[in-house]
This record gives sequence, structure tokens and C-alpha cells, in this order.
Amino acid sequence: MTQLDVDDVLPQLTLEEKVSLVMGGDFWHTAAVERLGVPRVMVADGPHGLRMQPDEGDHAGIGGSLPATCFPPAAGLASSWDRGLLAEVGAALAHEAREQGVSVVLGPGVNIKRSPLCGRNFEYLSEDPHLAGELALALVQELQAGGVGTSVKHFAANNQEDDRLRVSAEVDERTLREIYLPAFERVVTGAQPWTVMCAYNKVNGTYASEHHWLLTEVLRGEWGFEGVVVSDWGAVHDRVAALAAGLDLEMPPQVGVSDTALLDAARSHRLPPEVLDLGARRVLELVRRAQPTLDAAGDTPASATRTEEHHALARRAAAASAVLLRNEGGLLPLDPDARGVVAVLGAFATEPRYQGAGSSQVSPTRVDVPLEELRAALPGAQVEHAAGFALDGEPDEALLTEARDLAARADTVVLCLGLPAAAESEGFDRTHLELPADQLALLDAVARVHDRVVVVLANGSVVRVSDWEHRVGAVLECWLGGQAAGGGLADLLTGRVTPAGKLAETVPLRLQDTPSYLAFPGDSQVVRYGEGLFVGYRGFDAREQEVSHPFGFGLSYTTFALAEPRVEVTGSVAGGDLDVVVRVAVTNTGERAGAEVVQLYVAAPDATVTRPQRELKGFDRVALQPGETGEAVLHLDQRSFSHWSELHRRWAVEAGDFVLHVGTSSRDLPHATTLHLDAPSLAAPLGPGSTLHEWLADDRGRTLLAELFEQQGGGGILADEHMVSVIGTMPLTTLAGFGTAGLDHAGLRGLVERLDR
Amino acid sequence: MTQLDVDDVLPQLTLEEKVSLVMGGDFWHTAAVERLGVPRVMVADGPHGLRMQPDEGDHAGIGGSLPATCFPPAAGLASSWDRGLLAEVGAALAHEAREQGVSVVLGPGVNIKRSPLCGRNFEYLSEDPHLAGELALALVQELQAGGVGTSVKHFAANNQEDDRLRVSAEVDERTLREIYLPAFERVVTGAQPWTVMCAYNKVNGTYASEHHWLLTEVLRGEWGFEGVVVSDWGAVHDRVAALAAGLDLEMPPQVGVSDTALLDAARSHRLPPEVLDLGARRVLELVRRAQPTLDAAGDTPASATRTEEHHALARRAAAASAVLLRNEGGLLPLDPDARGVVAVLGAFATEPRYQGAGSSQVSPTRVDVPLEELRAALPGAQVEHAAGFALDGEPDEALLTEARDLAARADTVVLCLGLPAAAESEGFDRTHLELPADQLALLDAVARVHDRVVVVLANGSVVRVSDWEHRVGAVLECWLGGQAAGGGLADLLTGRVTPAGKLAETVPLRLQDTPSYLAFPGDSQVVRYGEGLFVGYRGFDAREQEVSHPFGFGLSYTTFALAEPRVEVTGSVAGGDLDVVVRVAVTNTGERAGAEVVQLYVAAPDATVTRPQRELKGFDRVALQPGETGEAVLHLDQRSFSHWSELHRRWAVEAGDFVLHVGTSSRDLPHATTLHLDAPSLAAPLGPGSTLHEWLADDRGRTLLAELFEQQGGGGILADEHMVSVIGTMPLTTLAGFGTAGLDHAGLRGLVERLDR
Repeated sequence: MTQLDVDDVLPQLTLEEKVSLVMGGDFWHTAAVERLGVPRVMVADGPHGLRMQPDEGDHAGIGGSLPATCFPPAAGLASSWDRGLLAEVGAALAHEAREQGVSVVLGPGVNIKRSPLCGRNFEYLSEDPHLAGELALALVQELQAGGVGTSVKHFAANNQEDDRLRVSAEVDERTLREIYLPAFERVVTGAQPWTVMCAYNKVNGTYASEHHWLLTEVLRGEWGFEGVVVSDWGAVHDRVAALAAGLDLEMPPQVGVSDTALLDAARSHRLPPEVLDLGARRVLELVRRAQPTLDAAGDTPASATRTEEHHALARRAAAASAVLLRNEGGLLPLDPDARGVVAVLGAFATEPRYQGAGSSQVSPTRVDVPLEELRAALPGAQVEHAAGFALDGEPDEALLTEARDLAARADTVVLCLGLPAAAESEGFDRTHLELPADQLALLDAVARVHDRVVVVLANGSVVRVSDWEHRVGAVLECWLGGQAAGGGLADLLTGRVTPAGKLAETVPLRLQDTPSYLAFPGDSQVVRYGEGLFVGYRGFDAREQEVSHPFGFGLSYTTFALAEPRVEVTGSVAGGDLDVVVRVAVTNTGERAGAEVVQLYVAAPDATVTRPQRELKGFDRVALQPGETGEAVLHLDQRSFSHWSELHRRWAVEAGDFVLHVGTSSRDLPHATTLHLDAPSLAAPLGPGSTLHEWLADDRGRTLLAELFEQQGGGGILADEHMVSVIGTMPLTTLAGFGTAGLDHAGLRGLVERLDR
Repeated sequence: MTQLDVDDVLPQLTLEEKVSLVMGGDFWHTAAVERLGVPRVMVADGPHGLRMQPDEGDHAGIGGSLPATCFPPAAGLASSWDRGLLAEVGAALAHEAREQGVSVVLGPGVNIKRSPLCGRNFEYLSEDPHLAGELALALVQELQAGGVGTSVKHFAANNQEDDRLRVSAEVDERTLREIYLPAFERVVTGAQPWTVMCAYNKVNGTYASEHHWLLTEVLRGEWGFEGVVVSDWGAVHDRVAALAAGLDLEMPPQVGVSDTALLDAARSHRLPPEVLDLGARRVLELVRRAQPTLDAAGDTPASATRTEEHHALARRAAAASAVLLRNEGGLLPLDPDARGVVAVLGAFATEPRYQGAGSSQVSPTRVDVPLEELRAALPGAQVEHAAGFALDGEPDEALLTEARDLAARADTVVLCLGLPAAAESEGFDRTHLELPADQLALLDAVARVHDRVVVVLANGSVVRVSDWEHRVGAVLECWLGGQAAGGGLADLLTGRVTPAGKLAETVPLRLQDTPSYLAFPGDSQVVRYGEGLFVGYRGFDAREQEVSHPFGFGLSYTTFALAEPRVEVTGSVAGGDLDVVVRVAVTNTGERAGAEVVQLYVAAPDATVTRPQRELKGFDRVALQPGETGEAVLHLDQRSFSHWSELHRRWAVEAGDFVLHVGTSSRDLPHATTLHLDAPSLAAPLGPGSTLHEWLADDRGRTLLAELFEQQGGGGILADEHMVSVIGTMPLTTLAGFGTAGLDHAGLRGLVERLDR
């Protein structure tokens, strides 16, 4: 196919053709304009595995699809804290997309986990925007390097499933800027995703699909986004308003509704031609970008070898996604040469839960069965199984008894628990954090008869462990591990792979402790982000709350020593080019190969505005052989020290001390380096509306004011500490209105004039 | 003086005279119009005691004033939960105001204690709007029955001192309606206060002084307020905008600024004449209301007898204001006939702190000295004193040692601790809840040498007790007790009066636990009320957090038994006349006269909107002799069960169960009566934008939809539980856009038409 010449094609398009381009052709394709050689391109769900539906499926977009490798969903991948792994998965996704003729993969999802209850948390990366942004960037870069586009989603403030098509997320700008937008910003500025997908919900009263500030001012104006904004499927309510706001491509097309509205608006001149042209141009540019892939479609058909390779990657990814939460007395790893009875309990051992439901659900190429993988990995042992509970949650005393009896005679017990599919899904939120009652009953029964129980968890969003974890020897949180979860589990349990995953979200003691608890999921079509900046560990840390397991936490089979960080500062805040590199030598001081994730959190103790205690601003994963020393390198820039200034409406660094906390979890930070940063003052210029405190805090202001008060015979007031503390928050205009200490409005005018001189 | 005829005077006023009326004459007076016989009236601070400044004082309004009885500030009075006491204080204030020629007393302050840190909490009643409203109503009714006006303040959402003249309180309407406005509403609808004082701060971006919705739509339109809205002193920034919003009287007048602005606006027709007329008319009506008092001025001069009577009332009030937080082993009361050494420690024993600083600071007629009062009340004992610490907070080892040595040889130790004046005041907020370090050091030293320590606290806002209370035998929280605090203390410690006070605000374990912690006091001139409805005990209860002492808690020297409540329901929600009377027989089962406060909290377990766990909706204080049985009567009306419906923008009762919890604190509620209320549905009518879940929840909607799906051959979808759970939150328009189960936009139109038939 010849290269599409957008500048040539655009002027030749009829009004109807332009309208068709900004509406999509069908559920999974853009519209073709055959007479001008504009092909259609296909998009498909696929944040962690392709979901290519060969026909229009079930018209809800969640039905069957072609087989594809199911990698661990985002909740797992993110727990690896491993940019390289995300890149590998991105490359694999690109490959499979090309094989299936898909030009744009609809992912990754980078929404922040505001509450552990969000039904779609398994599809999201983290409660922290830095971690989410860095990992998504790695995946998008490599996926797009493979010639396939991405769709970073859901833009923005889509942090719940409850009433997601109508709810208005009420969130202040600073919180948006510092928590909910940065992951999008990082991917857009770092990798120019081909598309960004707008969210279903409203943001501060306006549908994301019609949000000009989000879709145009911020996304394009500030971040320089050059791609296509596509709607989430069904997110468009007013196609004309959406186009004007910057939504280029509506999916799926609402034929008879959106086209009619656009044509009417164009013909009645309510829709400026250049607005429609711009949308059509962007869709054409997307087609042009996709053309090499379209042209090559079928060149590299799927092969058994490729399927094997991707399954192996999925297995590595599954192992890297798991977080070892507890390991008393080195219960894990199990000796691969062990003899004796290993009881593998739990229905998940034979019917693994490895991905979530909804638009991201993949038809896997194959699925590892944990029980079989464990049998293969423990050839000398007698690996026996009992389901222990039914997956439908119905209590079954016989199953429980059988499992308990097996546990009682086993040497080792591996208990596979987790959330059944019905407990978490796109489309609805959870209402609690508990494992099902029948599983907890099994756990109780098993813990009574065995003191070396290994609990293996499969769940896409956080479950509470605080009420039972002290009763078992080890807890391995595997999240949803993708199709090779079973193999990955066997690798971890037998020590072929050392766990290195770290929590990308806090495991709280209780749901009630979570920062958004009182304001999730809202009601009456409104959800207020009342906790503001204090999402996830930011909230737990600010309130100094105990947690089960903190953000960034994860155990290993080996041990690491971190040397004192070396900090190198170049540039300056005033110059806008501040750059800080922190290097940390890491040594594997244990007996096994493993990896440590060095984490850097920035604190701003001198801040005059509200700031979280500490925020993740850098991390680096270092894989080391026993005895080996490597180096973690953490890069900070000016933004790492900035807050969004509400007064100045820009990113700003306050002068003062910053502390760089370095360690291996958000609450294990043995190294602290203080850095003093000079920065231009953020104080507003003094004026009549400035308070007495503000005047007194300014050298020149204080001098002039004292002089004036002296002249008026009221000089004593400034020496009266108590009086100043009581009236210090009053603007000088107010004090002039009172005639305080002889100040009047004329005197104040003179004062301000002298100040400006 | 002849009665002012407002209708006669108003048309005769010149433009300049009208302007003068809406601006006030000087710091404490309205403007006179002598040529028309319009006198000036005087206003004075005085929520808990008159602060009549005979001249313009210090021009900041916080200087010296004529002697007046200093009753306990609001934090104390509110802890009595005693409407009768508030009424008595109101009557006394009216009397003193008449004596001093004051026509309007500027109080009470009914702002909600959003954070224990607010510097002015001592002037406010409670964290609960029902308690604040009921008590303020009692005071206002009786004060105004005495012919003197009140000024309910600060309207509205003035819940901090930090940046109070500029900060914008960002608070959603439901939270305003349910938490921050009801106390004002109760007083306005129940007692027509002569004036309401607007707050300094902004509410959702608009100065309270210019807030038409607050000052006119809600205050007058909805609540029927007929009096004058007066500015807090210096709260006016744009006199023209303020007048248009409904602010009648600016105080103090900004001569040369506000008059010029009003005259300019009137002459250039930017200010409609009727707006100015309305403001002038309301000020004239205030003058007319005040006229009887003006005429009678000097008829009843202050007398020594009256001073004594009011001091005695202040002493009763002080005793009623105290809350007994702890009393291990019946340490209190002390035997009035005791012999031996009673060590009275702490500088507050001789220099009592009994009121707060700022505009409410009274020049008392006299001040009880606690040490002297205790000596008088314990005539047989050897009452010795050591200061133990210096009031300026400077550590003083010698003082500490002296006090400890005295404690070591004493039979009983009374340790008087509290916040020094510099720690809390109008004008600034606290930053922590701790007692000063030197006092804690004294407490530590004394607790080491004596096991029967009685701690007496004097503080206007909550201090943390959790870290030390277990080390002492008794804790009596006296708040700021007014000029007779010392006498009241002696009455309580020796059992002449049995403590009956109950906490009007929660004592938390830690500041970090308080619901507003992460969002108080804000920064950058904005404070977001992120905790929403969950202020005070509503937040602690919703998060199931432990507290030191819960809202409503207070011990007694006697014991009470509450019988099963009897509930009588009349009227209905549909009729708008629901009325519920709850009667509880209370018996004094102990050996001493005392009083119990029966509290009723309403829970709405069936609510579909977010609601607090339980909310105080009724209370009654019953004073009983030993063995006596009385009856607490608690009145609930329709509002007691309502929430502010954000969808309907009105008060609404949801059908379902309500639980009436009755007991003696917010966490000691032994009786629960369930009441089922029928009520009209609050569901929005079904339409194309209603979700699948909403259609299925409606009998007729479900039937019609099922029929349509059957016709289209897609009937199976409704039987697919998982599918419905995933797409249930989608509006039917969205599903029609997808063509889900054969639904299209035309089909949806037909469906809605059939529904409407």
C-alpha cells in the first residue's frame, strides 16, 4: 500500500466522510474511505494480552476472542517494579498484535488505585503515580517500538466502577496534578502514545469525553500530545461537544445519533469546519502510523515457537509479580528434592484464577495448572490435593474436612486461597477486603492442625491478611499471574526464582483505615476525593497509621545490604535544570541469586504548603548473584521536588531542605540525605490585601510598617506579641478599616506606594 | 422616646442617610439620624459575658471593657447539655446588657468544631450541629426575651482562625446543610435572632459577606430570617456587592471607602434603590426593636446584689460545665470533712485560666481563686500549694521539685493543669493537642510519688489525655469555667455538686486520628472540607476508631438506670408531619443527687446514600435525688430522619428501617429500637439515561426491558448474572449505542414511550 498522504487526502474528504472518520467504522475498527485509499485499522483490548474479537462479538465488548498470551494483569506486573519486564511484555504484545492484524492495543490502564475496593484495580498499576507512570512508560515505549499503537487509559480520574458512566469525580486541581494525572503525563511526554482513551466518568461535573481542559489544554497544550483521543467504548454523550473538547474518535460509532448530530452541527455552522478537520486529520494520521503494520499483516503468522516463548515470558512475569509477605523461619523455599507429603489445598490449585473479568479478559493460549507444576517441581515428594472449598462460595463441610485431614498428615501445606471471579471484575466495586468465609474457615481448620502452612494468594486487588497471617508460616501474594501463574508459583515455592516483588499498593489492617474510606464510591452520581493528595501510603503515613504491609514492601530468600547513597546535584531550581543523581551500591549478602528494588522517597520538611510525608520519586531494581555488588541509580529532576502551586497555578519548588530517604520499602528507609535547595520566593508580592503576618515576614514591609505605626503613635502594637498573634491574619485593609494603631486607608495607600518604589 | 415609625422615616431619608444606616456610625454603634429621631444603638461582644467598650478602645476591638460577669465560654456551657442553664445565662446577659445600654449582644457562636485545633473552639459549642443548635436556641430565646438582641455567628463555615479573613472553605452543599448550617437554622427558625453575623471567610470561593445564596436565599428565603445581617468586624470587601447579597449592616464603617462606593453605585444606577432601601429598612427595624431598651437605659443600674446573683449563677454554670473523665476507685469526691494534707499543685490554682482571648474577653466583676475556694471547702484539711510550673512555659526545676516534694507528703493531690493563655486564642489555631511540656513533666514527677492524683484541667479546646490519664486517679475536665471556675471546682471536688457534664466534642487518642486532620487548616487560601459529613464522632464512628473519650461521655458520683424507651409515632413522612416522641424513665440508683443526660442517636441502616453511623437527634437532662425516677423526653421530627438529597436538592427521608439508639454517650447506647418508616420513593423516574441496574430494580422497567430483549432474541443476557454485573452500571443509551442484545436507539425510544404510557 502506498503511504497515506494526509495533507492530500484531507481536502478531498466530503463532510460525511470526515464525520465517519471521527466516529469509527464498527465496534473494533476505524472507518475506511475506500475511494481515497484510506484503510480501516483495527483496535483491540489488551493491556496484558490481546483480546482480538474477530467479529462484533456480544455487542458489549466482553465476549470471546482469539487465543493470545495472557500475561499477568497490571496489578501483578506492577509488583515487579521492573521496567525491563514491562518492556518485554510490551514487545510481546506488539508481536501478537501484528500477528492478529491489530494496530492499536487498548492499554495500559494507569489510573491510580484510590481505594482497594475498585473492581478494576487488577487492571491498574499502583496507588503511586510515579511507579505507575514509569512502568507504563516502559511498556508503551516497547510496544510502540514494535509498530503497534497503545491507548493509555482511562483519562482521567476513573478510579471506581460504581456508577462509572455518570459519576462526577470531584477533585481539586492540585490533587489531579500531583496524583491522578502524572502517570498519563509521564507516558505522553515520554513515549507519545498513539492514542489516549478518555474515561467514562465526569471530572468536576463535565464528562471526560467533553472536557476541553483535560483533552486539549492539559493533554495537548501542556504535555504536547500528538495522537488521537479515543473515547472509552460508549463514553460519548454529545458528539459535537466532545469533538470541540478534543475527542477525535468516538468508539463504537453511534450510528444514527452521533453522525446526525455532527452533520447537523456542521451544516448549521455550530461546528466550525476546522474542528472537524482536526479530528479527521488526527484519525488519518493514526491510520498512516498503522500502515506499515497493516501492510505486513500475515507476514509473520503465529507459530508454536512464538507461543512457547511468550508462555515462558509469562512464567517469568508471573514469578516477578509475586510479593512474599511473610516467611517465618525460612519456611520458603521448599526443598525441590524434598520427600514426604506436600498437601496442596484449595480449589485454585486445579482451577487457577489468573486474570480478571471484563474488557481485559484474554483467551489464553494455554493455562498452567498449579498442582501439576508443583508436582513437576517437587519430583521426590508426594504431592496430594484437596479442594477444601467450592469456587462458588457455598460452604462445603466435606471438602473442608477432607482438606484438613490431608493437612494433618502432610509434611508441608500449600494453601491456595484468593478471590473467586465473581468477587472482583470490571463493572462493579467490592464492598469489603475479606477472603470468602469458606476459605477463611479452611484456613482456620488447617492452621489448627499444621504449623508450617504456606498461603498462596490469587487476587487482583488487596485482601486483608491481618486477621490470620500470624497463624501461618508464609504468605505469598501472587495477584493474578496470567496464564503461567502456576509455573511461576512452582518456581517461587521451590526457589528456582527468588521472590523480588514489592507491593505497588498498601495492604491495610482494615478497610476503615484506607484514606478514601469515607468517600468511596460516593453516591448520587458524585464522588468527592476528600482525602486529596493523601492516597495510599501518603494517607497512611500522614496519619501515622499502622498497616499490615507497607507500600514498597516485599521479602526475599536472600538478603541485601545498601551502602550510603552518593548524591550528585547539578543545575538549579532558578535555572529550571535541577538534576540529582543518587547512586546506591547494593550487595547480595545472602546465599541465593535475587533482586532488590531500591526506593527513593522525597520529603519536604520545610514546605509551607501541605505535602505528603514522603513521596516515591525514584526506584531501581538490581538483580545480583550471591556476594555480588551492583549499583542502583536513581534520577531526580526539578519536578521530583515540586508541588503544584495553587496560588501560582504551576509546578514550583519551595526553597528549603529536602530529605532523600532511601531504602527498600516506604517504611524501611535507613538512609536519609538532606539536600538544601535554593529557589525563587513563592510569596505573593505585598499589597493592601496581604496580612499583617505577611508584612512582618518581609524585611522591607516590616520596616515601612513599623515606621508608619511610629509616626501615627501606634508603634507599640508591633511589640505586643499577643496582639500581633490575634490580628496577624488580618489583611492591612481590614486593619485600616479599623483604624488600628492609627493606620487608615490613605496611610495604607501611601505605604504600598513606598513599597513599590 | 416615641416609637420609631419605619414606614414613615424611610421615605424621608436622603441617599446619604440611607448609606450611613447600612454602614454603622462607629466601632460599636449604628448610625443615628438625629433630624428624624432615629437614635443610634450600641452593640457589644458578649457570648458568655458582656464586653462593652465605653470608647473606641484599641481599634482592633479586643481591648478593655466595663466589668461584667464572665460566665463559662461556650465550650464549657455546652458540656452541661443543659438548655435551662443556657437560658439562665441568656437572661443574665440580657440584664447586664440593659444595664450597660447595649442593645445587641454579639453572640452566640455556633460554628462547628471541625478540628480540635481551631483557636476559637472555646467560643463554640460542639462538634455536633444538633447539640449546638439546641443550646444556642435556649440562650438566644431567653436573652432576647430580656429585650436585648443577639447576633448568631459566624455565618458560615468559619471553622478555623488560620487565614480566616481570606480562606475559602470548600464544602459541598450536603455537608453545609447537614453539618455547618443546622445550628444557625435552628436558632433562626426557633428564635428569630435580631441579627446574624456573617463570617470573615469565603465559602466555596465567595466571601460570606457577599454570599447571596447564604445571606438571602437560604437565610431569608428558606429559613424566614427577618432580622439584620451584620458583618463580622472588617468582613466587608466590596460594600456594594455585600449589600446586594443581603448584608444589611457593615461594622465597623469603612468611612471614605464603603460610603463612597455605595454613593457612586447608587448614583450610577448600579445599585438599585430598593436594595439600599431594604438594608436601611432592616437597620431601622433593628433600632425600633431596641427602642424599649434604649428608653429604659439606666432604669436598673448594676447593683451589688445583682453582681452576687450573677456570680452565683456563674458558679453553678462552672460546675455544670465540667466533665469527669476518670475517677478510679471513687477517688472523687473528696471528703469535705477530711483532715490531713491536700496538695493543690499547679500555677492555675492561684492564677486560674477561665476564659479565652480575643473579642470575647470579658473584664470580670471578680475572679474566684481555686486554692482559696478549696481551702474554704475543706476546712478540716491542711490545704497546701505549690505552683509546680511557670505560666510562661519556661522549665523550672525548682518549682517542679517543690511540688513533687509536697505531693510526696500529701494525703491527696489536686493537680491543676491546662493550656496557658498563649496556647489558644482567637486569631490563630493550635498545631497540636498536647499540654505544655513542663506541665507533663510535673505530672510525671507527681504520678511517680503519689497514686491518688486528681488532675483538674483548664483549657478551651481539647487536650490529649491518652498518654497520661492511666497514671492518675481522676481527671476533671473543667474547660474554661468563667470567673467562678474556682468556686465551681471546689463544689465538684468536695461533692457539693455531682458532675453531670458530658463531652460536646470527642477527646481523641491522637491528633492524627481526627477526621479533618489531613485537611486542616488548608493552605494557599483554601481549606477543603474533605471529611465531608464525617466531622467529630461521625468520623470516629464511621472508621470504627478508638478514642480517649467519646462524644457525650461524662462520669458522675452517682449511678443511673435507664428503662427501655417507649416510642410513640404519629404522622407520616408522606404527610410531612412525622413526629416521634421517645420517653425514657431514668432512676438515680446511687447515693447522691445528680443528673443524667439521656441521648438519642438515629441510625439509618437501610440508607442508599452515605450516612453517618449514628447522629445525635435528641437529648434531655434529668436531675434526680437518690432513688428518684424521672423521665427523659426526646422529640424527633421528620427532619431527624432526613438527609439532604443531592439529587433532589431538598431534605428527604428514605423509606426503610431507622434505629433509635438511646444511652448516655455516643458509645454507650444500650437501648436500640427499630422504626420502619414508609416514605415516597426517591428514585429518579426511569429514562434512557437510567442504568441497566436501575431498570431492573423497577418492576415495570424490568418487565418491559425483558420483553424487548426477548423480541430481539437477546433475552438470555438478563439471565447472565455475571454479564449483568459487568454492564449493570451502563445507562441504556450506552447499551443502545453498543447494540447490546439487539437494543438500539430506536428500540430504546419505544421502550421509554411504553413506560410513560
